[in-house]
Amino acid sequence: MIVIGIDPGLARVGYGVIEVRNRKPEPVCCGCIETSMDQSTSGRLVHIYTEVAALLEKYPPAHMAVEKLFFTRNITSAMSVSEARGVILLLAEQKKIPVTEYTPNQVKQAITGSGRADKRQMQEMIMRLLHLPEIPRPDDAADALSIALCHIHNLR
Amino acid sequence: MIVIGIDPGLARVGYGVIEVRNRKPEPVCCGCIETSMDQSTSGRLVHIYTEVAALLEKYPPAHMAVEKLFFTRNITSAMSVSEARGVILLLAEQKKIPVTEYTPNQVKQAITGSGRADKRQMQEMIMRLLHLPEIPRPDDAADALSIALCHIHNLR
Repeated sequence: MIVIGIDPGLARVGYGVIEVRNRKPEPVCCGCIETSMDQSTSGRLVHIYTEVAALLEKYPPAHMAVEKLFFTRNITSAMSVSEARGVILLLAEQKKIPVTEYTPNQVKQAITGSGRADKRQMQEMIMRLLHLPEIPRPDDAADALSIALCHIHNLR
Repeated sequence: MIVIGIDPGLARVGYGVIEVRNRKPEPVCCGCIETSMDQSTSGRLVHIYTEVAALLEKYPPAHMAVEKLFFTRNITSAMSVSEARGVILLLAEQKKIPVTEYTPNQVKQAITGSGRADKRQMQEMIMRLLHLPEIPRPDDAADALSIALCHIHNLR
């Protein structure tokens, strides 16, 4: 069973793909889709849609897990993140992939046992839990793997 | 030349279609796409995508104008409006329709000459400018017609 985690944004969309084999989560791939500020918002959204659609084609997931903000001080950034999230949720529904949304605190709680864990702690735990030789880069990719792993814990 | 104005939202998407003939704006249709709270967010976004796509098919616009918030106190609402806006901007780009975004103040300024006009003033002006027998209903539809007309003024 494949689970894809997505950390959405207009400039950067982190993704992490994990396969559960014999009840063990095994990392498949992770990375970050970047869009250019030179493009229009709608152009950037099509870029995100196309790239995420290609990932879903290559690694057909049984589930998608997406990060959801509930509170933020930067409303401009929250609005552009939400535009990107809208496009990703649309795509999941079009491909009939069930989506679950998690707040950053829920992800931290699932991975480290504490909703207050810092970025470094999270990355160390992801490395250990997935038996990776090093911390996944960039940060968006590590975050997306955490979101996928949070969902796998949640399914159990 | 057809212009479509969109007032996005997750629960309600207002739309207004105006055709410019002999330099005069003539209203074609307006209305509101509603989604149910019983549906998942991704289900609601697919509903919006499908309905707006049908409108673009029926009234192929040369331009789309979409309302954009720059400031709001209600961040939860701003985020769900942005999810819907993301889907609409995606669709416009997929259909190669040029999109322009306007803030509510820009729309008010274009229609009434004042960025501080209230809802009632706006609706009266829209009725007069488009020679309508009455104020378009619901509010979302009237707002969407204002956005389309703002863009037509802007094109001149």
